[in-house]
Amino acid sequence: MSSYPANLIKCLRADPGIRLEQRATKNPDWWPEDAPQDKKQAASRMKELAGELSDLQERLFAEALQDELEDSVLLILQGMDTSGKGGIVRHVMGMLDPQGVEHYAFKAPSPEERSHDFLWRVEKRLPARGRIGVFDRSHYEDVLIHRVQKLSTEAQVESRYGKIVDFEKRLRDRAIHPIKIMLHISKDEQFARLSERLERPDKYWKYAASDVEDRLLWDDYQKAYQIAINRTDTESAPWFVIPADQKWRARLCVAELLLAQLRQINPQWPAAKFDVAAEKTRLEAAR
Amino acid sequence: MSSYPANLIKCLRADPGIRLEQRATKNPDWWPEDAPQDKKQAASRMKELAGELSDLQERLFAEALQDELEDSVLLILQGMDTSGKGGIVRHVMGMLDPQGVEHYAFKAPSPEERSHDFLWRVEKRLPARGRIGVFDRSHYEDVLIHRVQKLSTEAQVESRYGKIVDFEKRLRDRAIHPIKIMLHISKDEQFARLSERLERPDKYWKYAASDVEDRLLWDDYQKAYQIAINRTDTESAPWFVIPADQKWRARLCVAELLLAQLRQINPQWPAAKFDVAAEKTRLEAAR
Repeated sequence: MSSYPANLIKCLRADPGIRLEQRATKNPDWWPEDAPQDKKQAASRMKELAGELSDLQERLFAEALQDELEDSVLLILQGMDTSGKGGIVRHVMGMLDPQGVEHYAFKAPSPEERSHDFLWRVEKRLPARGRIGVFDRSHYEDVLIHRVQKLSTEAQVESRYGKIVDFEKRLRDRAIHPIKIMLHISKDEQFARLSERLERPDKYWKYAASDVEDRLLWDDYQKAYQIAINRTDTESAPWFVIPADQKWRARLCVAELLLAQLRQINPQWPAAKFDVAAEKTRLEAAR
Repeated sequence: MSSYPANLIKCLRADPGIRLEQRATKNPDWWPEDAPQDKKQAASRMKELAGELSDLQERLFAEALQDELEDSVLLILQGMDTSGKGGIVRHVMGMLDPQGVEHYAFKAPSPEERSHDFLWRVEKRLPARGRIGVFDRSHYEDVLIHRVQKLSTEAQVESRYGKIVDFEKRLRDRAIHPIKIMLHISKDEQFARLSERLERPDKYWKYAASDVEDRLLWDDYQKAYQIAINRTDTESAPWFVIPADQKWRARLCVAELLLAQLRQINPQWPAAKFDVAAEKTRLEAAR
């Protein structure tokens, strides 16, 4: 078993009073020496992770099904356009059994959703017991784009940080373990990725004119992220800031975070809910 | 590109007046010579399939997102206990990007679901445009277990075959392409798999005492499947009977069926919905 993950996770954790411009988006100097150092080493570690994740996921699913455990995991993915949220779903959540994964991508709210409190639609998408949920965007949009684009008043946005902290506290009370991820990319890397979307016909569909408009507000978004992270980072619902300019690195980090959370839950194969010897006899009789 | 898939798919298709006892559950004598012949060859072919499935799935998703295509695929999985429905989801649907997969496992209906027509809950779970849906069990339970266990009257069950045919006809009208799969296992193979669930503590959770009760009704279930397949097999919603005693073979068959369906839809990268040159200029200005 590798020994670097605990160190890595400590380094990924948002520090109090975090300043995003001081957090590396690539080649971080704090990257553990015994962690994978390049794409190839990461691929080999990802294979190991796949096996362990798959085993823990199945135990979690099984134990919850037998009502012996109530836990679920909720990965919340946030990040600027092109930061790689979709890639995390594809390559990290894609390592898991689809039977135990609940994925949801939040878009602009519908009129019905807007007629409710901003957490109403989030509540409806929480993962069931024993599942691993993943939100591609989330209730954080209501303090990010809403703050930057002034879609809500300042007072409304201000009121939401505390509501989010309370909501996430209740998640833990319900044994839903949130892992809040900010995929942190540099402005240069975003330029390269947006350019690629304009160069490659198989990437056109990922491009939206609004991406450039958001890019023009880069600093405002960074500030909004920083405020959101600072005001909603708690022990029970921590934020992790992932260096995301290198896709292999970001995916490895998220897989390690997920594995650490599953290990902490430590799900076990549930005991038989029946008399094993008696059932063997019954089955033999039905041979 | 392999040339066997078209032949294979023809052989998997339910023939008119199908007799299940005449359909192989393993080592079928009609298995194409140029198809993979063992687990190892199948694994290598599955790797090829993974790449092509992934590419087609992304095109399907992209084209639907851009409103250029309305199609979706719906894999309907049916089969006796232990026939490997979960394994298909894990190993075949697990090859796909979770962002484009909608998985649902139908359980015994809730009181609310029972208060509606049997297709009501199915309608709610149909895949969105551009998605690949997978049903683990389905509306067919209402003519299988309902027939065998007499959970409905004979007249009710009788009325459902036609309703299913009509419903599935409407699916095609809505560009939802159903692939109906019966995982066909032998009674001996089921015995071996149930025994394993009673031998291995990591499999206990998959065992239910009702599995033996259903096994005692094996012939009734086979008959119910045969009637259901005969009465609901149509050109637009065909049934495929998969030899499922060998897991590698069953998974390969389903992956080939899925690939053939996606190829038939033939999704393309959507054209740019914007002026590429103008956007390049805008992006450059926002560098």
